[in-house]
Amino acid sequence: MRLDDSWFTEACDECGTAFSLHQAHKIHDEQSDFQHIEVYETAKFGKLMVIDGYVMLTTLDNFIYHEMMSHPALFTATDPKHVLIIGGGDSGTLREVLKHAAVQHAVQVDIDERVTRVSEMFFPELCEANADPRAELLFEDGIKYVADAADSSFDVVIIDSTDPIGQAARLFSTEFYTDCQRILRDGGVMVAQSESPLCHLPLIKSMRGNMRDAGFSAVQTLHFPQPCYPTGWWSCTLAGKGIALDAFRYEAAAQRAFTTRYYSADGHRGAANLPFMQEALAD
Amino acid sequence: MRLDDSWFTEACDECGTAFSLHQAHKIHDEQSDFQHIEVYETAKFGKLMVIDGYVMLTTLDNFIYHEMMSHPALFTATDPKHVLIIGGGDSGTLREVLKHAAVQHAVQVDIDERVTRVSEMFFPELCEANADPRAELLFEDGIKYVADAADSSFDVVIIDSTDPIGQAARLFSTEFYTDCQRILRDGGVMVAQSESPLCHLPLIKSMRGNMRDAGFSAVQTLHFPQPCYPTGWWSCTLAGKGIALDAFRYEAAAQRAFTTRYYSADGHRGAANLPFMQEALAD
Repeated sequence: MRLDDSWFTEACDECGTAFSLHQAHKIHDEQSDFQHIEVYETAKFGKLMVIDGYVMLTTLDNFIYHEMMSHPALFTATDPKHVLIIGGGDSGTLREVLKHAAVQHAVQVDIDERVTRVSEMFFPELCEANADPRAELLFEDGIKYVADAADSSFDVVIIDSTDPIGQAARLFSTEFYTDCQRILRDGGVMVAQSESPLCHLPLIKSMRGNMRDAGFSAVQTLHFPQPCYPTGWWSCTLAGKGIALDAFRYEAAAQRAFTTRYYSADGHRGAANLPFMQEALAD
Repeated sequence: MRLDDSWFTEACDECGTAFSLHQAHKIHDEQSDFQHIEVYETAKFGKLMVIDGYVMLTTLDNFIYHEMMSHPALFTATDPKHVLIIGGGDSGTLREVLKHAAVQHAVQVDIDERVTRVSEMFFPELCEANADPRAELLFEDGIKYVADAADSSFDVVIIDSTDPIGQAARLFSTEFYTDCQRILRDGGVMVAQSESPLCHLPLIKSMRGNMRDAGFSAVQTLHFPQPCYPTGWWSCTLAGKGIALDAFRYEAAAQRAFTTRYYSADGHRGAANLPFMQEALAD
């Protein structure tokens, strides 16, 4: 069948797939200083944010990504009090981070303030924590922020970036990871979104190699469904500074005092076990 | 963007989504006595089988579905020796079942022999076990087969069906589940594919209710990614006859003597833990 103009479609060349959402009516369109930001209303997925033609998030399914980008790292780091988010302008990851009562300070550094302002307009539920006194929102270059940050000043660094295209490619480099490693305390964890386990294993393998080259002592890739991203299957990769990653704080995760919709302690452990990926990524 | 004719697309009205595969060249097309069977070669997903316009499976990602339709049930049933597969004509589930050395007899009952013959031609790797002396392939009405089968004659019943549309709708009914329950031994497990956790929770809830009404003592829904199905996220639902489902044989699963690509013991446990779904399905 052919889809008519009532569908929004994103095709992924590397995956040989396309994902479409029905009855996509554009309700916002702007060119910021950095990128083209669009928002659509859709039939079943709520609102859809698109940047430079790529799906960023939808109302219906963003909870999976945001929970998996935050809780595994926070339940693995030894004592997460200070958290840095690079990118993540929609503020959904920040909201999850601040569910952890132990977090004293969370800095979100996105180069494009317009992403946050658009998110506040169309995804207000993701921005619930933006006014939390522990939250600090900065709109500047994340790479420069990390380069300038003091040694051992964070417990968790979350790289909530777009795909490794254009400027964002630097967020997947050994140089950047080396700075992230430097600004983490011992027992700290970095986590980065790492694309599709089905179609991007070479990229994931390269990221893991760069993380090790940057001085991280352990790496671990977790998989999760993410309907709105290419292949509907996605991953994040954790890197530990002087800490093993298999032994996360299971009891704390199982007895968490806040609500999650996707994340669970058993799901966390299960996400690390994916035989074909482990075999492909074996060092 | 609009996709041109080089894409195969399946749209799902209920989900408001469409999934497309690039460079889909049709290499087989037939009308069997029961349905329209097509096979395409695709850019990245290998071969694609389509029945009546719906994606059945692809070479690249069928392993997830077939492993999740078989191993959780087989590692949960007390002593699985006799296995019945209703549907499953592509034989991929049968292959996984026969990886279990304890299985003495596995019957696959698909109404349409052409699905199996087409699978043998284009997905020969899924049909590797068809000649196993423990395998019995029948081409007849699965509902009648179950109605005629003796009480307590199977340890596992796998309902590897299409969507609940047309004739297949009967495979989701209390009446059918009642017969499945009757032909299971105590300690036996039935498992059925149960659509998308993101878009089909009402159906899953209804299936679980029907299973309980049919006399099953416990039900459990497991989720897993499935890129080629609507939303890229899918599920199966297990029903136990006189057996709890939370306590599967974890050690046996962890020490399995055969290779899997998706299934792991920790992944199995994790798949049962999905907070928003558990809340929505709570009885």
